[in-house]
Amino acid sequence: MPETAELVITGCAALVHDADGEVTFAEDAGIVVRGGAIAAVTTVEQAARVPADEVIDGRGCVAMPGLVNCHTHAPMVALRGFAEDVPIETWFNDWIWPVESNLTDRDVELGALLACAEMIRGGVTTFADHYFAMDRVAAAVDSSGLRAQLGWAYFSSQGPEGRERSLDFALRQRGAAGGRITTCLAPHAPYTVDEADLAATAALAVEHGLPVHLHAAENQEQTDTAVARTGHTPIETLRRAGLLGTDLLIAHATGVTDDDIALLGAADGRIGVATAPRGYLKFGWGTTPVRALSAAGIPVGLATDGAASNNSLDVWESLALTSLVQKSTEKDPAWLTSRRALRHATTESAAVVGLGDAVGTLAPGHRADIILVDLSGPHTQPVHDLAATLVHSARAADVRTTIVDGRVLMRDRRLLTVDVPAVAAELSERLPALTERREGRRIQEYDT
Amino acid sequence: MPETAELVITGCAALVHDADGEVTFAEDAGIVVRGGAIAAVTTVEQAARVPADEVIDGRGCVAMPGLVNCHTHAPMVALRGFAEDVPIETWFNDWIWPVESNLTDRDVELGALLACAEMIRGGVTTFADHYFAMDRVAAAVDSSGLRAQLGWAYFSSQGPEGRERSLDFALRQRGAAGGRITTCLAPHAPYTVDEADLAATAALAVEHGLPVHLHAAENQEQTDTAVARTGHTPIETLRRAGLLGTDLLIAHATGVTDDDIALLGAADGRIGVATAPRGYLKFGWGTTPVRALSAAGIPVGLATDGAASNNSLDVWESLALTSLVQKSTEKDPAWLTSRRALRHATTESAAVVGLGDAVGTLAPGHRADIILVDLSGPHTQPVHDLAATLVHSARAADVRTTIVDGRVLMRDRRLLTVDVPAVAAELSERLPALTERREGRRIQEYDT
Repeated sequence: MPETAELVITGCAALVHDADGEVTFAEDAGIVVRGGAIAAVTTVEQAARVPADEVIDGRGCVAMPGLVNCHTHAPMVALRGFAEDVPIETWFNDWIWPVESNLTDRDVELGALLACAEMIRGGVTTFADHYFAMDRVAAAVDSSGLRAQLGWAYFSSQGPEGRERSLDFALRQRGAAGGRITTCLAPHAPYTVDEADLAATAALAVEHGLPVHLHAAENQEQTDTAVARTGHTPIETLRRAGLLGTDLLIAHATGVTDDDIALLGAADGRIGVATAPRGYLKFGWGTTPVRALSAAGIPVGLATDGAASNNSLDVWESLALTSLVQKSTEKDPAWLTSRRALRHATTESAAVVGLGDAVGTLAPGHRADIILVDLSGPHTQPVHDLAATLVHSARAADVRTTIVDGRVLMRDRRLLTVDVPAVAAELSERLPALTERREGRRIQEYDT
Repeated sequence: MPETAELVITGCAALVHDADGEVTFAEDAGIVVRGGAIAAVTTVEQAARVPADEVIDGRGCVAMPGLVNCHTHAPMVALRGFAEDVPIETWFNDWIWPVESNLTDRDVELGALLACAEMIRGGVTTFADHYFAMDRVAAAVDSSGLRAQLGWAYFSSQGPEGRERSLDFALRQRGAAGGRITTCLAPHAPYTVDEADLAATAALAVEHGLPVHLHAAENQEQTDTAVARTGHTPIETLRRAGLLGTDLLIAHATGVTDDDIALLGAADGRIGVATAPRGYLKFGWGTTPVRALSAAGIPVGLATDGAASNNSLDVWESLALTSLVQKSTEKDPAWLTSRRALRHATTESAAVVGLGDAVGTLAPGHRADIILVDLSGPHTQPVHDLAATLVHSARAADVRTTIVDGRVLMRDRRLLTVDVPAVAAELSERLPALTERREGRRIQEYDT
């Protein structure tokens, strides 16, 4: 008689990875969860014999690793749709950075809770967050049941206090929420954090065994300006500061040069890049060179950026757009197939947030971060190719069930851990105070 | 005491158009429907006083004109995900045109029914369809309750019978389904229908007062090849054939030149263009030049193309992608604002399918083709700008209720007119016969 499982999922197709790490599918599968981890991905017959506290009927669904949002600013959902149809410098200087000077801890917590609800409903089980008042984000992660890598952002304009606060947060919250919270140091970007401060960050990262998460080479103009001002690209600045020797999560990287990519490929640290293609289209930028980064051995994970620019935390849309925009940019319809896109969404995204050994694949021993995607809707029928159906036909709203660490956070589209009407109502009351823009008041100046 | 209404919607925001045709929103609105038409868009208080057979509580929703899918091949949902990650010539010659030689009337009807279900669930109330066995598509339109402009496609390789069948269908089905079906002539494209056949089509269109719907200048390569072979761009060929004097719906037009756009702007006929941006990304093409077409006075409507290339009939995604891709292509984040995108989705799309006087705006006298979009989800909260929320945050799955001609086709996400499990099951049984590819057998050859 096998040991009792806390959860068994039966009768689904399961997205698994073969020995080469390629995405494949097991049909009529069963998944056994014990101790918050995946105990087995087996046949439906084998799974049916396991005594279980809870059984989920997965017929009509694909079970797959929960999605990872590799770069976001979760609390910025409060500013979703607030700053529209403007270029990046106007977006920062006239809209976002002025109102972020009004942010309260409660605004951050409510935004983070709403963001967690949105991500759970969209099949995201892990997110990498880069923002302020991060203890409030950690509280939202704890209560919502999600997994997150959290970093408290800083600018050099804040003096050494910014960096010290980021370190203090990272050391205090590391391993919180039953181990679901990991932490990092979070300098904003090479254009807002100077090279000395970046070098100090690199030293702290090595000393304390912390990863670093920052924006770099967000667009070509930033790279061009950096070269004109300093003689170096933003990626060269990271190398000079010692950051390429750390575990480094670089957001965007649409403005990297071929030499930059070579530097990243030769780095001693574990480098990952997060791509959030929707915002690049909206701002009229180029996109992350996924093909060249992949060729250099750099994992590329999927992200949404914050909802103030991206308008949603819909990683499912990032998955589809990554496939579409990469085919378009490379002018090669055979590139970035659906299976490859799903690899970016699973194992590569997990690697980018430093959790490649814990999540991103339905392999025994990995944490049980699982989503069930319902393919019975008219828009996902018939199925000729499960990978294409997932990438190009399914939508975030097709996620029926979201599980983290073996705990069900959404069942049959019902959220179990966040009270959305209460959070949205309180947040709406606070918006007039949050969105007041006062002359000359902003947390930082955008001037690359 | 006001006359009884068949339907009253209360307490919603309503997307309406001002005197200049610009999109705006009426808050706390009520909508009164009589005789399948919009009788009034008024205040919630006024609407509450109207006796009604049915009252829908629209609180938390935006009421807006149903979406129009300006160019699709609905039955091709049967081939969704069948031909992936290949260039257009392989897609046609090795995958789609071989298996379309197996198509039966029943395949077409099942595909059309599944497509209608998908469109109703995604808030589409009208679609322009261009395919074969169109009596079966008309039957699906009739039973599903949707509105459609239908055309039976033909190639010159079929001889005069192709054109004659298209005309016969257009004359027989014009005004069917209680007036919800309009018809057109449907030559495939200038690369598959010769100039003499196009000229004969133009003459028939004028003689019978029928619009024409075709593919043209689908991509730059087609235009370049046409110029090399014939000395004319595809659009010049349409002009020479007399088609620019008809009411003409051109699908795609990503390969039009500046001279072509001037020709279209100066045309005597009522010209419209349908843009289906997802497929252009997937094939690595350029996109429809919406800005230049708009400047020339050409309405541009939203479309999905068939699901065999686009993978879905999600016009909501076309709305978001049109905004994103146009900003990206023009490298201008201030271009194609959300309000402008919504104009393309409403009045311009209605004009493109020849129904500008009947649908596309919630104005008294227009048909009551209305959708209710639920904005209470975490991904659409808070709302700073209704237009941005609709274009960039809302998704097809947020459509709660779909109404055509005053008849509710989906209520609270429940489809009322199509039995999806039965249709999907029968279609799945037929797929092996449909997808068999036999040596040398195809309905047409792609060779621009």
